[in-house]
Amino acid sequence: MWMAELSERSDVPVPTIKYYLREGLLPSGQSVGATRATYDDSHVRRLHLIRALVTVGGMGLDRVRDVLTALEDTSADLHQVLAVAHEQLSPVPQAEPSDVAQAQVAALMRDRGWRVQPEGRHARAVAAALDTLTDAGLPLDEDILNTCAEAAGLLAASEVSGVPSEDREGAATWVITGTVLVEPVLLSLRRLAHEHHSSRRFT
Amino acid sequence: MWMAELSERSDVPVPTIKYYLREGLLPSGQSVGATRATYDDSHVRRLHLIRALVTVGGMGLDRVRDVLTALEDTSADLHQVLAVAHEQLSPVPQAEPSDVAQAQVAALMRDRGWRVQPEGRHARAVAAALDTLTDAGLPLDEDILNTCAEAAGLLAASEVSGVPSEDREGAATWVITGTVLVEPVLLSLRRLAHEHHSSRRFT
Repeated sequence: MWMAELSERSDVPVPTIKYYLREGLLPSGQSVGATRATYDDSHVRRLHLIRALVTVGGMGLDRVRDVLTALEDTSADLHQVLAVAHEQLSPVPQAEPSDVAQAQVAALMRDRGWRVQPEGRHARAVAAALDTLTDAGLPLDEDILNTCAEAAGLLAASEVSGVPSEDREGAATWVITGTVLVEPVLLSLRRLAHEHHSSRRFT
Repeated sequence: MWMAELSERSDVPVPTIKYYLREGLLPSGQSVGATRATYDDSHVRRLHLIRALVTVGGMGLDRVRDVLTALEDTSADLHQVLAVAHEQLSPVPQAEPSDVAQAQVAALMRDRGWRVQPEGRHARAVAAALDTLTDAGLPLDEDILNTCAEAAGLLAASEVSGVPSEDREGAATWVITGTVLVEPVLLSLRRLAHEHHSSRRFT
């Protein structure tokens, strides 16, 4: 397809596509003569991924490049690709979490048998969130923390089993949009569930 | 206690306390002579609640007043007080959710037997979040939505059972800080759980 059709199918304006080509984020098309080139479905998929990274993931082009580099590294397995994508989505926690909170998270991971990096940014983000509660004079009850992990694990298992594994770009797009866009569903369902349980308990 | 001690115990500056008194958000103290007054523990609790509403809940003073009015309405049961607090915490979704998404949420609530207002802002927020996914070309899989509701229900049940029911202001403070501050714990645990399940599935 020509550039115009690529723009239409990907919903990305032509000047933006040209910019991505210049920056090397989108591979060149097949040259036809001196000034024209044709593109194929792989370009449409790549543009969907870039747009998901930028608009849904809120990433700058440097972080987009890191994800694409991981994607193109054929020695990386899909887990590594997704880990890079995921990492670029999560801001590094500003404050160093307390030792107490980090130990609490490490114990939680051990108890549940979760295979995660204990010093990774997700584990640190959980610890930092626990510190915020403690600092507010409302340390999170152990039972609620366990239930939180149980609930998160239940959802993540279901989500990861739905990741399309045959297509690396499709998988990365799915993980990024899913990770970000499912958050509001989960949070508003939690508030709805609060409404239900509060009604059951207090009326 | 005098104003100075009230300020120290509540961690709210004296000028702010005077402002809340003038605005009627904090009941007057017990007058001692013409210009002085003493305060008690109920004032400390009220200040904690106001601060939680403002700093954690991000509410303006008008919304704070609605919560306090519900609190002072002795004909309202605790569920009604919490519902008002909760409602003031959740922004009204900007876009009208689609009929399809609203029907999907209504069916989900029916299946789970949740006692909630089908036209309430939480139900509408869930529907709006589902629309966002659909608009992004990634309609949420029915199984994942069900698991999401399952996970949210599990957590909410545990949280609501921990609400201190003997003290209305304490309960409202707990619900507001808990609702907002537990969100980052849940979201980062979900990402940590993604890390685990992705590692199990793809490596």
